[in-house]
Amino acid sequence: MRATYMYGAGDVRVVDAPDPIIKEPTDAIVRVVRACVCGSDLHPYHSLAATPDGKSMGHEFVGVVEETGSDVTTVKAGDFVIAPFAWSDGTCDFCREGLQTSCRHGGFWNAGDVAGGQAEAVRVPLADGTLVAVPVEETSPLIPSLLTLSDVYGTGYHAAIKANVNPRTSVTVIGDGAVGLMAVLSAKRLGAEQIILMGRHTARTDLGREYGATDVVAERGDEGIARVRDLTGGDGTHVVLEAVGHRPAYDQAIGVVRAGGVISRVGVPQYTDAPIGFASLFLPNITLTGGPAPARAYIETLLPDVLAGNVDPGKVFDSEVALADVADGYRTMDDRTALKVLVRP
Amino acid sequence: MRATYMYGAGDVRVVDAPDPIIKEPTDAIVRVVRACVCGSDLHPYHSLAATPDGKSMGHEFVGVVEETGSDVTTVKAGDFVIAPFAWSDGTCDFCREGLQTSCRHGGFWNAGDVAGGQAEAVRVPLADGTLVAVPVEETSPLIPSLLTLSDVYGTGYHAAIKANVNPRTSVTVIGDGAVGLMAVLSAKRLGAEQIILMGRHTARTDLGREYGATDVVAERGDEGIARVRDLTGGDGTHVVLEAVGHRPAYDQAIGVVRAGGVISRVGVPQYTDAPIGFASLFLPNITLTGGPAPARAYIETLLPDVLAGNVDPGKVFDSEVALADVADGYRTMDDRTALKVLVRP
Repeated sequence: MRATYMYGAGDVRVVDAPDPIIKEPTDAIVRVVRACVCGSDLHPYHSLAATPDGKSMGHEFVGVVEETGSDVTTVKAGDFVIAPFAWSDGTCDFCREGLQTSCRHGGFWNAGDVAGGQAEAVRVPLADGTLVAVPVEETSPLIPSLLTLSDVYGTGYHAAIKANVNPRTSVTVIGDGAVGLMAVLSAKRLGAEQIILMGRHTARTDLGREYGATDVVAERGDEGIARVRDLTGGDGTHVVLEAVGHRPAYDQAIGVVRAGGVISRVGVPQYTDAPIGFASLFLPNITLTGGPAPARAYIETLLPDVLAGNVDPGKVFDSEVALADVADGYRTMDDRTALKVLVRP
Repeated sequence: MRATYMYGAGDVRVVDAPDPIIKEPTDAIVRVVRACVCGSDLHPYHSLAATPDGKSMGHEFVGVVEETGSDVTTVKAGDFVIAPFAWSDGTCDFCREGLQTSCRHGGFWNAGDVAGGQAEAVRVPLADGTLVAVPVEETSPLIPSLLTLSDVYGTGYHAAIKANVNPRTSVTVIGDGAVGLMAVLSAKRLGAEQIILMGRHTARTDLGREYGATDVVAERGDEGIARVRDLTGGDGTHVVLEAVGHRPAYDQAIGVVRAGGVISRVGVPQYTDAPIGFASLFLPNITLTGGPAPARAYIETLLPDVLAGNVDPGKVFDSEVALADVADGYRTMDDRTALKVLVRP
């Protein structure tokens, strides 16, 4: 089959790879219908050292089950399925608590002998715990929205859930990428009445307004902080959803959060140390939370409104490429001419 | 009157100071019955630069109201009162939310023209919002326990509340000072069944066991982390209450917290930057919370069990000095021959 590998910063290729096969009785083989490129894929795209063997890519996909191992009971050949961005057994204590990203027997795509989703097919370990079957055809117009449940919608929702967004919380969302926009949609779903989106790409912030943003702040740094404070009577917002991962976004979050409030991070941090001392977090009693979303935990919650057409998270996909052209998808996301790119094997 | 001032690291003196007078109609004058020395007083005791005018000291006291301004309605001359370690109006949005440390019109003792509690008397601003009258005599044996409601009991309770300690959470408490022991008592009150106290002063950890600690870990660093992990099936505890404030205590917290868990800090951080990146907090979805306790918010909650004698938080006071000897109190707390020192004007 054909699959995407990265060989170093900026070097994405589609190559021949062995067809995936059932290795464990709990495996399933899924033929990929749509995959996509993630904002977090841009981190190695900027920084991956030369890797002669290549690194398998992609952690978001929907597809059709082709084959299942003998122990798999919840999905069968022919089922359309959503694969969340971590695979998990669904039965351990962490999974039962809804923290599938810490599953005792699970893991992430593109690690060890588990390859990635920007490919024609994928071996899915622990298929019963991982995959969610959905009664749609692979030609359904809902496919892009269903694909957001692999990662970005669940990730935005995780940010909002961890921050306990509710009708009494004002919210700032930092970042107008797909995750930031999904954080807006999630804050709206949870009842927030003031949602300030910090971003400066008009097409994206316009979609943010459609998803529920009440205000858009294009300024950054101290100017951006001052604008958010202006919009909140000087106080900042109860909640800040940080959907970028770079250090300036963290500093921005500190600058716009109200005393007693919560900063919830879902952008993968590209820094190690940062201020958490007396003035930044401690004196104002700020809570810092977040992490990789257990996307699997949220699929059942978010799916009904997607199937009913009440929300259209799939609008974050403004571009589509054939698998052979996936390198173009990375490039256009990197130069920000594309918001999020569908990949069609 | 006589009052305590610090003139530099290690230089604590009792000096003549002007008698406090009513300046605002919302003030009260409180004659101090008992004050005490706080673990956080030891931070300037170690590091305060030479201060020729001296710095007023003390933020924990109980006493008797001597006089009130014309607007004060909730306390009157003769009332025995508890003063929390921040003064606050009790009416602003932050106070109504229970975050009196961020009161829009409040502040902390020993700042501006508000002096401290290690003195014969104190001017209390915003007396209606700040003071809590309690129906006891100033000779009551409950005085030490009531004094813990000024700070340390409320602080330990704040740590546990912010971490959402409940019967389903296991807890590690880092630090066997008075706040750490009050964190143990608070975790017990909130129903935690496993409470691991990290500390190595046997007299203190014995009191910790009396307050509810189920395990004591005397080891520090990697050894201490390994011991806590041994006690928790390898996972660490759902909650870590950090009652020290030095950087190694933060690193210890990272080492013993279970994935998906909460680190709640109430030790005043003596560091600025620390690891909060991918490996430390993000990947395992750890929440970092805490801050200065709104002690005022918890007095009504914690008071009934103190008055009924169901708990005896006052046992953290293992020493008492006359105000004239307050420097001895600092010295014995600093060299750890005293756990916590009562000061008797």
